[in-house]
Amino acid sequence: MNYTEKTVLTEVKYEGNIIDVERITVELPNGKIATRDVVRHVGAAVVIPIDEDGNIYVVEQYRKPFDEVLLELPAGKLDSPDEDPALCAERELKEETGLTAEKIEKVAAIYTTPGFSDEIIHMYMATGLKQGASCTDEDEFLSCKKFQLKELVQMVINNKIKDSKTIIGILYADRLNR
Amino acid sequence: MNYTEKTVLTEVKYEGNIIDVERITVELPNGKIATRDVVRHVGAAVVIPIDEDGNIYVVEQYRKPFDEVLLELPAGKLDSPDEDPALCAERELKEETGLTAEKIEKVAAIYTTPGFSDEIIHMYMATGLKQGASCTDEDEFLSCKKFQLKELVQMVINNKIKDSKTIIGILYADRLNR
Repeated sequence: MNYTEKTVLTEVKYEGNIIDVERITVELPNGKIATRDVVRHVGAAVVIPIDEDGNIYVVEQYRKPFDEVLLELPAGKLDSPDEDPALCAERELKEETGLTAEKIEKVAAIYTTPGFSDEIIHMYMATGLKQGASCTDEDEFLSCKKFQLKELVQMVINNKIKDSKTIIGILYADRLNR
Repeated sequence: MNYTEKTVLTEVKYEGNIIDVERITVELPNGKIATRDVVRHVGAAVVIPIDEDGNIYVVEQYRKPFDEVLLELPAGKLDSPDEDPALCAERELKEETGLTAEKIEKVAAIYTTPGFSDEIIHMYMATGLKQGASCTDEDEFLSCKKFQLKELVQMVINNKIKDSKTIIGILYADRLNR
């Protein structure tokens, strides 16, 4: 069965700091016309920094859409569509936690919200961690914390951790550590 | 430490079918001014329908942002901000798979992409499944499939499944079934 929705018209409705928004008119498989809202995002990288004692480093960060401070794995958006996500992962790890990693391994690529956005988050496991100086962006306000993996798994199960990429990273790490 | 970003100005930049977009001017904790793109979404529900033999029902669905067919757990957006997400979960389960459930239990609330959107997905485990007639929306093109939980876990590990809510649902089900 062919589900393809052919693009009839693409209108750029908003160009923002980190997203652009398109309204796309499509032809459905039955020939009818419909419109789709699509949020374009350059993509991002997220890191699971795990040390030899089973500690994972996370950051507390204010998120305007919820007006809440959330606990998240270190992450950030690509500098450009061509940036190697592994380099982005290393950069964000250093900026947000001060850590460098001997080994950065790709775990997965995640579509955060395919119903309305093309954002892809590239997920990496970082091991062989060394603490250097943190060099957080001047206007980025966050604090770095570390927890035992099993504590974080409990926080996921209790739904204390709500961010999807962080839930996935912790459950992945838990599975790989069995 | 106080990370709060005070709202200075909210401008609605786009009003779409399933999202609205705001540009919010904020005052950072250091007094500087910045802007945030915020995609407003009414919220959604996702269901993990698992039968007595350990099969989970998923749907294949075309997603315009990626121009790809994705394998996802049954899900859909709330009819209104006031809709009980459990009712939304039951409705979407019926519409997308034809199934009804004796028991619908809340598992978690997930923030899909807190960097730029306030979308919350309410996740439910559905058990005591009964097959009725499917009543898919006329303009919704999808097909329902069932897999053993362990097959789906393998598809998550191999990154064949990319949708974040689906990855989370499968890893949750896997954890709860140990």
